[in-house]
Amino acid sequence: MRTLISNIGELVTNVDADGDQCGILRDAAVLIEDGRIAWVGPAASAPTTHGQETEVVDAGARAIIPGFVDSHSHLVFAGDRAAEFEARMAGEKYAAGGIRSTVAATRAATEDELRTRLRGFVDELLAQGTTTVEIKSGYGLDVNTEERLVQLAAEVTPEVTFLGAHVVPAEYADRSDEYVDLVIGEMLDACAPHARWIDVFCETGAFTVEQSRRVLEAGIARGLVPRVHASQLGPGGGVQLAVELGAASIDHGTYLTDDDISALAASDTVLTLLPGVEFSTRQPYPDARRLIDAGVTVALACDTNPGSSFTSSMPFCIAIAVRDMGMTPAEALWAATAGGARALRRNDIGIIRPGARADLVLLNAPTHVHLAYRPGVPLVRQVWKDGERYP
Amino acid sequence: MRTLISNIGELVTNVDADGDQCGILRDAAVLIEDGRIAWVGPAASAPTTHGQETEVVDAGARAIIPGFVDSHSHLVFAGDRAAEFEARMAGEKYAAGGIRSTVAATRAATEDELRTRLRGFVDELLAQGTTTVEIKSGYGLDVNTEERLVQLAAEVTPEVTFLGAHVVPAEYADRSDEYVDLVIGEMLDACAPHARWIDVFCETGAFTVEQSRRVLEAGIARGLVPRVHASQLGPGGGVQLAVELGAASIDHGTYLTDDDISALAASDTVLTLLPGVEFSTRQPYPDARRLIDAGVTVALACDTNPGSSFTSSMPFCIAIAVRDMGMTPAEALWAATAGGARALRRNDIGIIRPGARADLVLLNAPTHVHLAYRPGVPLVRQVWKDGERYP
Repeated sequence: MRTLISNIGELVTNVDADGDQCGILRDAAVLIEDGRIAWVGPAASAPTTHGQETEVVDAGARAIIPGFVDSHSHLVFAGDRAAEFEARMAGEKYAAGGIRSTVAATRAATEDELRTRLRGFVDELLAQGTTTVEIKSGYGLDVNTEERLVQLAAEVTPEVTFLGAHVVPAEYADRSDEYVDLVIGEMLDACAPHARWIDVFCETGAFTVEQSRRVLEAGIARGLVPRVHASQLGPGGGVQLAVELGAASIDHGTYLTDDDISALAASDTVLTLLPGVEFSTRQPYPDARRLIDAGVTVALACDTNPGSSFTSSMPFCIAIAVRDMGMTPAEALWAATAGGARALRRNDIGIIRPGARADLVLLNAPTHVHLAYRPGVPLVRQVWKDGERYP
Repeated sequence: MRTLISNIGELVTNVDADGDQCGILRDAAVLIEDGRIAWVGPAASAPTTHGQETEVVDAGARAIIPGFVDSHSHLVFAGDRAAEFEARMAGEKYAAGGIRSTVAATRAATEDELRTRLRGFVDELLAQGTTTVEIKSGYGLDVNTEERLVQLAAEVTPEVTFLGAHVVPAEYADRSDEYVDLVIGEMLDACAPHARWIDVFCETGAFTVEQSRRVLEAGIARGLVPRVHASQLGPGGGVQLAVELGAASIDHGTYLTDDDISALAASDTVLTLLPGVEFSTRQPYPDARRLIDAGVTVALACDTNPGSSFTSSMPFCIAIAVRDMGMTPAEALWAATAGGARALRRNDIGIIRPGARADLVLLNAPTHVHLAYRPGVPLVRQVWKDGERYP
């Protein structure tokens, strides 16, 4: 079965994307075959549809973009922290420790409850155009629960991250080094077979740089690739550590020093910005303009989690990035698609070219600019993932 | 035909709403009959469903809120100003004069083009939970086109506003008093029969206080009720004029003096805040906390228009109001429902009580707090308007 999408007003390919453009074709068509992009080009020279069964879709002169690649999320958890959110909006400060309340609820939940919730989120993301999502553990913080979380995540995505070192659990208070021993010992043994990535929250209130190094090096020794939560609540050594260890991404980066920026610009490490966090914690937004101009590769992700950012909307993150972080609409879209792919070291997603996965989003809009121009409006009309159409 | 919605986890009624709560019932049920609310109460004592044909809907312990009342929009227009938006995001300043480019496109469009676009917007709003929308003219600025715009608006809502005095059209440059003569003469004659409201943009670059007074008084003399665009780009005399003339609402209010606030607090005039405008023009957000604490009645609306605010998402406006304007989630929801009804002088909408219109929204969330807690996420699961269910 083939699908020919024709009459595409604007096709954002991300091919040869450079600065303020993202490989845009007008009056284009795309041919999908066996879950992959088979052909891309002007509608007028699209392949003929006879000879083989082909579904023809008229895009109605609307825009098509690559499916969003959300390279940072925490989707396996139980409970709700709406009351904490309300209190924060009324003036209380965000602190990393709130994670522990989700840990208690997650440990108490059954596997089926967690699975049902997780699948609900995956459906919610897909309906909003997110065709690839990275999912972290980190609300178990004991061997059995962390293992359960990475197994559940692996049911829905290949991009599974073991984040046993999310925060020190209450039962290890004042014994954080012992907790790190557990994470890099028995917990890593249980989780590594189900994960691709190793992650640590390197921040005051979570793990020190030295502890973070132990976690990441242990993961690397097991074949996992590092990514690091750092500089969310203040500057710290996490960025330099991430670059030194060849991390695919450092995530947050709300507070970066000039040295951090230079190190990132000279590295292959992507900086994944998470505007939903700044929105929901009233932290200052990072200056993406300065970072991009300095040569840093920037991705955008939602960081969907019940504490610091419960959005799952990549278009919302794009709108904030354009309004408050100095990115152009094209840069923000690139960061939310190709940038996320880069942060996951993938070259088969986030791009529309022959051979790539057929992960596409048809917008209810003539151009991608509307993602920022129409904040909050659900503009996703149709989604293809691996060539399958939703809804 | 009756509909019984049962198993409502949280029902926001807005009955006896006061400050930081909005008439919330838990474990509730609602009975709809003939397009109106027939009964509201605890699920355990819901009316029996036998004896009459009754559709029973299980809300799944989710939240139900009144349909949003969006009391300020400009939905009849042609063209697109995405390029202007992009330029503004890259640093250009917003000016009221950009309206003229939409005027040129709207005058050139056919009635069918305008109608198709308008109906698309109404569907878009309904899918996002907006069951009542006020629609203004103001992109015609000549007698024939303004008449066409109010007629088209009247096809989809009873809340039609004649805004011939939106901006001075190019052909009247330097002859603004003559344009006002036209507005209150032939144009008002043509438009008044189709409208309920008279409006004017009282702002530097648009109309002076004296011109605004002429427009509003002429409308009042024709039986229209005044509402006023004022203090969007800087302080001015529009608020005092609106209060003096008994306007139902002044809209924008980004820049208010202490005297403006006192006058509003002592009046029946609602202040309609439009956070989408501040978002999309990077203006400072008004301090709704201060306004509410001073006794001003605040409504929230989208101001959907192609220039200064192209969102049509009331949940987005609620999220911004909570994050950036100091409103609690309950206050913001009240302002987006009952507040909008107040701004339209309606008591049959924005409230869930027997006799009110059956305009309801079922959220994909356990409480209304999620509207702010999950910014950008399409949380509207089902909508009833006059008792009819969408989708």
